[in-house]
Amino acid sequence: MSRKVYIENMPLEKAQQLFINQLEQVGYFNLTGETIPVLDSQGRVSLHPVIAKRSSPHYIASAMDGIAVKADVTFTATETNPITLAKEQYLEVDTGDYIPPQYDSVIMIEDVNYIENSVQIIKAAVPWQHIRSVGEDLVTGDMVMTSLQTIGPYEIAALLNAAITDIEVVKKPVVAIIPTGTELVEYGNPEMAPGEIVESNSHMLSGLCLEWGAVPWRQNIVIDDREAIKQAVLSVKDQADFIVVCSGSSAGREDYTSSIVEELGELIVHGIATRPGKPAILGIIDNKPLIGVPGYPISAQLVFSLFAKPVLLKKQAIDLPEPETITAQMSRKIASSMGVDEFINVNLAYMEGKYLAYPLNRGAGITTSLVKADGITVIPRGKEGINAGEDCQIKLWRPRKVLDETLVCIGSHDMSIDILADLLYKSYGLRLISSNVGSMGGLMALRRGETHFSGIHLLDYETGKYNTSYVNRYLPGQDWCLINLVNRQQGLIVKKGNPLNVQSLQDITRDNIRYINRQKGSGTRLLLDFMLQQQGVDSNSIYGYNREEYTHLAVAAAVKNDAGDVALGIYSSARALDLDFVPLAEESYDLCILPERLGDIRLEQLLSVIQSNEFKKHIDQIGGYNLKSSGQITSQSR
Amino acid sequence: MSRKVYIENMPLEKAQQLFINQLEQVGYFNLTGETIPVLDSQGRVSLHPVIAKRSSPHYIASAMDGIAVKADVTFTATETNPITLAKEQYLEVDTGDYIPPQYDSVIMIEDVNYIENSVQIIKAAVPWQHIRSVGEDLVTGDMVMTSLQTIGPYEIAALLNAAITDIEVVKKPVVAIIPTGTELVEYGNPEMAPGEIVESNSHMLSGLCLEWGAVPWRQNIVIDDREAIKQAVLSVKDQADFIVVCSGSSAGREDYTSSIVEELGELIVHGIATRPGKPAILGIIDNKPLIGVPGYPISAQLVFSLFAKPVLLKKQAIDLPEPETITAQMSRKIASSMGVDEFINVNLAYMEGKYLAYPLNRGAGITTSLVKADGITVIPRGKEGINAGEDCQIKLWRPRKVLDETLVCIGSHDMSIDILADLLYKSYGLRLISSNVGSMGGLMALRRGETHFSGIHLLDYETGKYNTSYVNRYLPGQDWCLINLVNRQQGLIVKKGNPLNVQSLQDITRDNIRYINRQKGSGTRLLLDFMLQQQGVDSNSIYGYNREEYTHLAVAAAVKNDAGDVALGIYSSARALDLDFVPLAEESYDLCILPERLGDIRLEQLLSVIQSNEFKKHIDQIGGYNLKSSGQITSQSR
Repeated sequence: MSRKVYIENMPLEKAQQLFINQLEQVGYFNLTGETIPVLDSQGRVSLHPVIAKRSSPHYIASAMDGIAVKADVTFTATETNPITLAKEQYLEVDTGDYIPPQYDSVIMIEDVNYIENSVQIIKAAVPWQHIRSVGEDLVTGDMVMTSLQTIGPYEIAALLNAAITDIEVVKKPVVAIIPTGTELVEYGNPEMAPGEIVESNSHMLSGLCLEWGAVPWRQNIVIDDREAIKQAVLSVKDQADFIVVCSGSSAGREDYTSSIVEELGELIVHGIATRPGKPAILGIIDNKPLIGVPGYPISAQLVFSLFAKPVLLKKQAIDLPEPETITAQMSRKIASSMGVDEFINVNLAYMEGKYLAYPLNRGAGITTSLVKADGITVIPRGKEGINAGEDCQIKLWRPRKVLDETLVCIGSHDMSIDILADLLYKSYGLRLISSNVGSMGGLMALRRGETHFSGIHLLDYETGKYNTSYVNRYLPGQDWCLINLVNRQQGLIVKKGNPLNVQSLQDITRDNIRYINRQKGSGTRLLLDFMLQQQGVDSNSIYGYNREEYTHLAVAAAVKNDAGDVALGIYSSARALDLDFVPLAEESYDLCILPERLGDIRLEQLLSVIQSNEFKKHIDQIGGYNLKSSGQITSQSR
Repeated sequence: MSRKVYIENMPLEKAQQLFINQLEQVGYFNLTGETIPVLDSQGRVSLHPVIAKRSSPHYIASAMDGIAVKADVTFTATETNPITLAKEQYLEVDTGDYIPPQYDSVIMIEDVNYIENSVQIIKAAVPWQHIRSVGEDLVTGDMVMTSLQTIGPYEIAALLNAAITDIEVVKKPVVAIIPTGTELVEYGNPEMAPGEIVESNSHMLSGLCLEWGAVPWRQNIVIDDREAIKQAVLSVKDQADFIVVCSGSSAGREDYTSSIVEELGELIVHGIATRPGKPAILGIIDNKPLIGVPGYPISAQLVFSLFAKPVLLKKQAIDLPEPETITAQMSRKIASSMGVDEFINVNLAYMEGKYLAYPLNRGAGITTSLVKADGITVIPRGKEGINAGEDCQIKLWRPRKVLDETLVCIGSHDMSIDILADLLYKSYGLRLISSNVGSMGGLMALRRGETHFSGIHLLDYETGKYNTSYVNRYLPGQDWCLINLVNRQQGLIVKKGNPLNVQSLQDITRDNIRYINRQKGSGTRLLLDFMLQQQGVDSNSIYGYNREEYTHLAVAAAVKNDAGDVALGIYSSARALDLDFVPLAEESYDLCILPERLGDIRLEQLLSVIQSNEFKKHIDQIGGYNLKSSGQITSQSR
């Protein structure tokens, strides 16, 4: 490993300013052009003013169907004293036809009487009537576009009419993207060894380049070797306008990049006071910017957006509209380190007169937080965090309309919720976002007004019945109703072929068995504890009892990938991962809704989807469900 | 010509609804898909839900740099009672490394003391600490995307991580565009005969297709022949998802299209109650939509936008955000026919606390009105027009920010105004829109508060001096100041080589000379009349005295294209068109500004551009200007 380089903690704006200033000083933002056919120029930006080379129309044209005449021969014509024009005194013309110089006026066909080889006129023509001038649309010498205009369909038409066939446009900067990391493998490999990671960051950054008008130039993966990375940088530096080195995620690895920048050019910043994104590197090599982005996807995305985006846009003189910002109420407390600007991706929904922001998983490795994000908020350096219920400013990634057409489901996880989300969007353009916090968490969110409904499956130890007693207890004094979504099989998820021959809860206490549990407050955890109690099994005897995952699929995936041996979960997740299943119980998975919300058109749409045949069809395909009471109100308050 | 088909006058919404309904009935909007590589899918829309095929990470990984251990061997470790682990009891791991099944915990490197061949631990490890679960990002079986989601850079990364390499996306509809018209020629022809027109509509419509996610498939030009057009339609109908026939602009020509639609399929609408756009044709052939658009560009654009856009978007399940609508005050009265929805393209600027809308040339042949348009307003069927000063709703084509950063110059035409526009935009991102209504019109606009400043050159017959006396007379009781922009040469613009040997104003009364005049109220017209009076020339003796054009370039273009022989105008326009010039006078072209506006940052930017060397450099390149007092205040009120 190379020597440790001192990492600064530079405030974001200072780093951004420094980078732009240094690039300005080396003339990086002087615009460069390339000449391309007008037909290929849509979306491009003119480098210079464009001057019409031909007038349009380039000839005097008739504005009507009729006859062209010399006006002075018609001056005496009236209804009572019509004049007759001989064949050589007029020319039949259609709209758009050329008017030769011997004529100076057009008479509409409606005002002409045809008589054998001549025409009769009953009204004097005014000179230049019904004639379109040369250059009525545009004139040779007109400035069709100024510099730095974006070319669209209308500009293309006008340029062609002005006899412009090629145009000099601002050149798109070429962004060389160099992924580095010995653990990285190219996508598309069906069998991956443990420890191998799909290289996807470079493709994400390529997509961002496209959004910003730049041309991504993705390089092959480079192993963690200083010389190899240096050679990769040297091999792109002449052709690229911008270089990005994607570091691996291990500590210290980005030091290669910073020392290479110091060797080949100038290291401007190493380390910014943001989270994520701290180890970012900004440098200049051969008067071109180089950015080193961290290996974690959310860090890479943030650093690239904060530093590459403004540079690439300025390099093209593109002024993208700023995303809309809204005020939203943060649904739960978020801690933040003093001294760094903390960026938080959030989901957003409109609920009871305000926007609520739901912070997404902040793990820097969580690509799906970027997929889910509706917007981003920043906790500034001087602030310790955001309290639950506190207003914050959110920069939106999606149109506000999407937020307004969003239903929120916080509670227990079931695969049918995904099916609902798909069908709601397909049928009504209504988005369903869900957060898996377990059944108890769902009821709490419902009580705090943070969710439109909750999926729950809570077994009452006393009665052996599901949900009603819990709702009564946790939503006191509130109206509620429970709508059954599915009944489903719970059981032990085991490896294909059940090699450890697990048949009962007793078996999971065996020494050779690694159990994977669900989190406290989840219905499945309650079910486990109830069954353990009934059967007199001591939870301390289960290896892995304290190891918690948050969804049925997560525990199934742990079994599938030999991160454990057994988990309690639903049949559908065992089947989804092609695992074996030892059934133990059937349970009711209900949606708890506050009836005052039932008037909401969005909840009506939800119910109509639940009752649809398409929903049933999809659920049947997954397997392990019983839909006999699906869509029925199983219980309600009072 | 084919038989006359009865043209309806169907209200717009009814026609739109009918078209969509009929297409729905034939199942046109059932989505079709195509499978493409994920790497090519940016901007495309998922056809089905996408389910993760692999968890990410797909193995238990270390979340830290340190050592992997089995937690139970560390339970007794404390600072005072450290435990030592032998080489076989731990594994050195970096962040992201695989944790083999014999370990269940990671101890951070900071908490490890390395001692020869062993390590010392001073704190018990909690099972599963610092370990990333399988599927922390996403789990096999997770729904990565629902149907109908737009794929962006983050989705691409998530899909690759989920082992998805190809994805079924909504197919882009192929739009066959058939230009028809015997008068049409392909662009790029340097020599065009009078009567020939560049075919640009199909390229404009192609550009619109691209904006709406469709694939344009432009056909060669087809002559005005029913059979030829029919063959063109037949040749595309199997491969296209949408057919557009661009009619010629002559009356009756679109009848070919309607009769072909009747022969090959079903004619749904022929004629809508809009202006422009009346002769639009909507039909269905082989369960595919066919639109006949009029030949004039503005009509073609409007009909295509009104009828093709909603169909093409719906065909792809794309929900484009509606453009923003603002209220603006119409700057001048616009008449409209009762019974049609009249669409008016407008320029927009922010002036004195409100948005002002400036209607653009309504000529259906004016491509440049589309280029210039900032938005569009509709005068509904039941309304006779819009009064000057009346509020109207404008649908915006540009971000509101552009309108706020716009200067307006209404007045006389000079080529230096275009230079100003270019430099203002390049230097300050400030847009300058100008309207050529002549000097007098400019002063009137200034008085009505419709323009930030006016370019004027008005000769006082009494004093022989420019501008001041007019401003005193037409802006009574107002403060104003005149800033010289340029002094310029006025003279007679004649054909190259001056074949008619024009040397003086006397010469333009000759029988063989066709004069082209400027409009009443223009400074050049005043100058002509002043000089005619001085020299005792009767304007009635000038052939073409009543033939008016609105700009210096327009009269020069008329001379260039032999639409006339002589015009009075400025040297720069003669030079721009490579014509000869007989100088007659030098005049002051001043900008008249109300000084209360001088505090406006935008006007300060204007002045700094006028005083810049770059402005002088550009003006010198045009020729015929004298910049000795450019940028100086030449006169002001009081």
